[in-house]
Amino acid sequence: MNKARAGSVDTFELTCLLWKRKATVQKRRDAFNTAREGIYEQRLRMGKAIFEDLQQHDHDIFIWITPRYNLINASPFGHQGVLFEPAIEHNGTEEQKTKWLSLARSGKILGTYCQTELGHGSFIRDLETTATFDGVTDEFVIDSPTASSAKFWPAGLGFSITHAVVMAQLIVGDKSLGPHLFIVQIRSLQDGTPRVGVKMGDIGYNEKDNGYAAFEHVRIPRTYMLMGHSTLKCDGTCTADYNRAKLSYSVMLLVRSKMPAIFAVQLAQAVTIATRYSVVREQGLGPDNSLDTETSVMSYKSQHFRTLTLVAKSYAMFFAGQDCKAQYVDLKARQNRGDHSTLASVHALCAGLKAYVTSEAADGAGEARKLCGGHGFMSISGLPDLIGVTAGGCTLEGENHVMWQQLGRYLLKQVDAIQAGQDADEQVRYLAPEGPSIPCSATDRRFLDTSVQLSIYRHRAQRLVSKAHWLVHSSRKPKSEAWNEHMMLIISASRAHIEYVVLQSFNAIINSPPAPFSPTLETVLERVRSFFALPTIINPRSTDALHFIESNTWGEAYLNTSQLDTIRFLVNELLEQLLPEAIALTDAWDFRMRAYANIMRWVEQMPINRGSVEGSWGRWVGPILNKEDRAKL
Amino acid sequence: MNKARAGSVDTFELTCLLWKRKATVQKRRDAFNTAREGIYEQRLRMGKAIFEDLQQHDHDIFIWITPRYNLINASPFGHQGVLFEPAIEHNGTEEQKTKWLSLARSGKILGTYCQTELGHGSFIRDLETTATFDGVTDEFVIDSPTASSAKFWPAGLGFSITHAVVMAQLIVGDKSLGPHLFIVQIRSLQDGTPRVGVKMGDIGYNEKDNGYAAFEHVRIPRTYMLMGHSTLKCDGTCTADYNRAKLSYSVMLLVRSKMPAIFAVQLAQAVTIATRYSVVREQGLGPDNSLDTETSVMSYKSQHFRTLTLVAKSYAMFFAGQDCKAQYVDLKARQNRGDHSTLASVHALCAGLKAYVTSEAADGAGEARKLCGGHGFMSISGLPDLIGVTAGGCTLEGENHVMWQQLGRYLLKQVDAIQAGQDADEQVRYLAPEGPSIPCSATDRRFLDTSVQLSIYRHRAQRLVSKAHWLVHSSRKPKSEAWNEHMMLIISASRAHIEYVVLQSFNAIINSPPAPFSPTLETVLERVRSFFALPTIINPRSTDALHFIESNTWGEAYLNTSQLDTIRFLVNELLEQLLPEAIALTDAWDFRMRAYANIMRWVEQMPINRGSVEGSWGRWVGPILNKEDRAKL
Repeated sequence: MNKARAGSVDTFELTCLLWKRKATVQKRRDAFNTAREGIYEQRLRMGKAIFEDLQQHDHDIFIWITPRYNLINASPFGHQGVLFEPAIEHNGTEEQKTKWLSLARSGKILGTYCQTELGHGSFIRDLETTATFDGVTDEFVIDSPTASSAKFWPAGLGFSITHAVVMAQLIVGDKSLGPHLFIVQIRSLQDGTPRVGVKMGDIGYNEKDNGYAAFEHVRIPRTYMLMGHSTLKCDGTCTADYNRAKLSYSVMLLVRSKMPAIFAVQLAQAVTIATRYSVVREQGLGPDNSLDTETSVMSYKSQHFRTLTLVAKSYAMFFAGQDCKAQYVDLKARQNRGDHSTLASVHALCAGLKAYVTSEAADGAGEARKLCGGHGFMSISGLPDLIGVTAGGCTLEGENHVMWQQLGRYLLKQVDAIQAGQDADEQVRYLAPEGPSIPCSATDRRFLDTSVQLSIYRHRAQRLVSKAHWLVHSSRKPKSEAWNEHMMLIISASRAHIEYVVLQSFNAIINSPPAPFSPTLETVLERVRSFFALPTIINPRSTDALHFIESNTWGEAYLNTSQLDTIRFLVNELLEQLLPEAIALTDAWDFRMRAYANIMRWVEQMPINRGSVEGSWGRWVGPILNKEDRAKL
Repeated sequence: MNKARAGSVDTFELTCLLWKRKATVQKRRDAFNTAREGIYEQRLRMGKAIFEDLQQHDHDIFIWITPRYNLINASPFGHQGVLFEPAIEHNGTEEQKTKWLSLARSGKILGTYCQTELGHGSFIRDLETTATFDGVTDEFVIDSPTASSAKFWPAGLGFSITHAVVMAQLIVGDKSLGPHLFIVQIRSLQDGTPRVGVKMGDIGYNEKDNGYAAFEHVRIPRTYMLMGHSTLKCDGTCTADYNRAKLSYSVMLLVRSKMPAIFAVQLAQAVTIATRYSVVREQGLGPDNSLDTETSVMSYKSQHFRTLTLVAKSYAMFFAGQDCKAQYVDLKARQNRGDHSTLASVHALCAGLKAYVTSEAADGAGEARKLCGGHGFMSISGLPDLIGVTAGGCTLEGENHVMWQQLGRYLLKQVDAIQAGQDADEQVRYLAPEGPSIPCSATDRRFLDTSVQLSIYRHRAQRLVSKAHWLVHSSRKPKSEAWNEHMMLIISASRAHIEYVVLQSFNAIINSPPAPFSPTLETVLERVRSFFALPTIINPRSTDALHFIESNTWGEAYLNTSQLDTIRFLVNELLEQLLPEAIALTDAWDFRMRAYANIMRWVEQMPINRGSVEGSWGRWVGPILNKEDRAKL
């Protein structure tokens, strides 16, 4: 399959576009090499290696993403940098920040973040853990009053960490003042045993020590409440910043703003494995048994199509993820100046993009495994691990269907604003009505134009958001029932908006790249963009593809059968053009995986194959075999 | 959420419809109870318990499906009943059957089936293992000449079984006579150690001992070749039955004919877990925060829609799976009379239905996990295991994209026959042209009629198969290139045919049930059928839904936006009608799972939580913590 190796792209140029700077690419490579042994041996060793690497070399490359490109929560100490420290940074006083951040950053304590409870997820108002103020001793008493109030899921809570930022209902006297954050030491720093009053352990979630903790009269000093936005004095008087609720979003937003790029990289990993397998693996005699010898599976159109759609999707989602991070950084800078005006739009974007990217990454990793046949089921392929990790992304940090609805609520409110003659946020101004809907008029190669692709995505999003808005607002049912009745449509509308946003991001990176790049790379990236835009319409597995076709015009489709066939023809053409680039497009991520050439050697060295079989044989297998009559054989 | 519990269905009546006879339901319950402890402890113990149960109680309930409703290959001895014994039954002489089947069935040997090699899958002509006839000693010498020729994947090969039916190229003198089957003892019956010349072990595939084996000059008597269809005499003369190739399909077909029903049951398991979770779990304040207290997640439209579409799909696929098994049984009876006339149609049906059901089951199990939030990731939920098992189904016993093409090849050949004026097989007679395509004219409640639903599915399949046939045949490219170019369409056409077949099966079970059932159950089953047929058209996640809409009529859709909205309205109505039946529809599978009420108790008893943390703490966590300055805290 030489075609798949004979591309025009300079891989290193593309790598530098992905990771932004040559220096970062080099540092990432060095760090990966240094830590390799530790990473392979086990996650705990990896966590320690990462921590020490950050300390010794004073960098932050692995705060969010491990050297194996997992979200950092794959390390037992992973929540320290992404949740524990930011929670203190965002919610502590200057004095608290000075104290706790220096302890955490120097490794004198190891922290995690405890919000979710066994019975309560995204709806934090119902959290049950309490922090009751005891004015006599100037302390809080932390309690888990019920089984469903046990803190559940935090990475590292099982065995590894010493402190936690715990969200609990603040109780002063007989008043509940709502959820606040408290720093609670939960383990001995000497030997790691749980502190008296803390019942805790591992919850059996994959291989990591995600854990649970239940508190029984655990006392902490009053000063361990994070008081950046509300203060509790020793006499029990409490004052709260007017913006406390708004600001309390920010840590959650920080994590969500990072997730799209990270999960795009995880999909890229899975598809890199699948691409290499597809090029190397030979199977069958070609379509309709037309060849004399077995052929690379990449030469089968279905394998070729499925692999490259995933490649294109990983690029599209990564670029959108970079934009999302930039929007969060901008929001944070504004908020530091007291300007919260973009909070709603960034919150909605992060929610929708998080839902989109994690769903696509999870589905894509599963598809990548199927592309590798039985070999994708062996742990050495790396795919079973990636599948678990990406599936988790759909649920953690905000369940995706809840996220879609958060975006949906924002979109419908923006339509309200537009109809009231107010200014809509920039990213949704396209929702303003443009006159009657008319079918798409593009033909032939015009479907390769950015402007045509964008207009198709825009039409779908505009139509769905308007329809959802109209149905919810014109319903005679109470608004909540109308919302529930049309929830599937609201989710579809949100998704259509996000796919439009993603295509815009891809377009933007080509029009205004972070650094100038060669015309060759530009041509390839335009093809990759088209290969994101067009297959999403006609891919048999695309979610909500029907809505690309529907129109408000009676009987007439927005895209008719003939136009769809044109798109299919162009997709086939792009497949041929991109085949030679497949290896470069995946190598550019710079994963530096070793080839999976020696499965047999790996299999032979597994401990289970070097041990004795006598145990299981004697106990389970032997007794089935009837000892008489063996001589006959 | 009392609505979800207040249904009209008599669960036991429905259970008996699913499992056919009251006696089977009772036996299954008894066996499950008897074996429960063994099943929970580990698969090996389960394998032994199943084997002994079969022997002691003389039944065959668990030949194909374990008491936990897994395909039997989840047991280390699972290939014995489904592959080892059938291979001998289908390919051995009467004398060989008498000898080997009695040894296997009495547990004096334990067998598996070795066909696939590390480098070679479905294309058996390229298998590399050789069986060279040695006329001097009247023996075969079995060899694995290359690394890629190691036998790979068989269940039980790792540690558990003693004998294997091995597929190898028969070499006599300097002639290769193609793949034949040989019985090879691979382990000592005394202590389970591998026989000299056999290098073998576990391949690290999930938790089972799927294994590999490489042979170096392993000798077996000439009489160990299975000679039912071809004979090798001691002088080296070989005679082969004219139908050898056709008959050699039959074991593979046997397995494929069983898979659809089994994987439908596995999806039913996953959705049963998700349904119970959805009814019990409370979260959030309702749509648009309209309620005062948290509410059952089933009351959210997206959860409700997703859960019930999986319920309906598991029923539809199970009924189609039962039909598929019946067609195989009919084929086998014909073949025993020398009539191979239905081989092609049964082969195509098994291939397509296997691909359809395993894909839908794998996607559905993943969706079920997402429906359970974080809890779906805990092993106690049962879902991680089901996800692995169903994903495997897409690859094993014929990779699904290969399967789709096998069906596609059959469908295109049948169109050739129709165009040549010959009789097509019964299941594809609908492909004969009916005149010009006109858009669907149904409105309102007519979409609930079986005949309208069938006509929509039929139109889509007919259009796609005709289009694929026309494009492949009218292309100027060589046929193999034309096939490859249109492979995505061919797969879509095959899928559309299978979805039509599945809907027909569902219709048939209502029209001619195996036993008469109550009008109440009939009404519910009709709604379930509609809830399979209609959501498949408008579900955002439906594969290939675009093709329901496309027509050959310029500009005009087969189903227009207004008709699609009618379908969406009816789907919402069905959702309300089926909500009270959700528990009964899943209870009827009779899985008898225990409720997952006490996650905390389970978590606390896990060995990892009862052991000491000192090991990892001292080695990994402690060293990060800087011992100085602790007094400060």
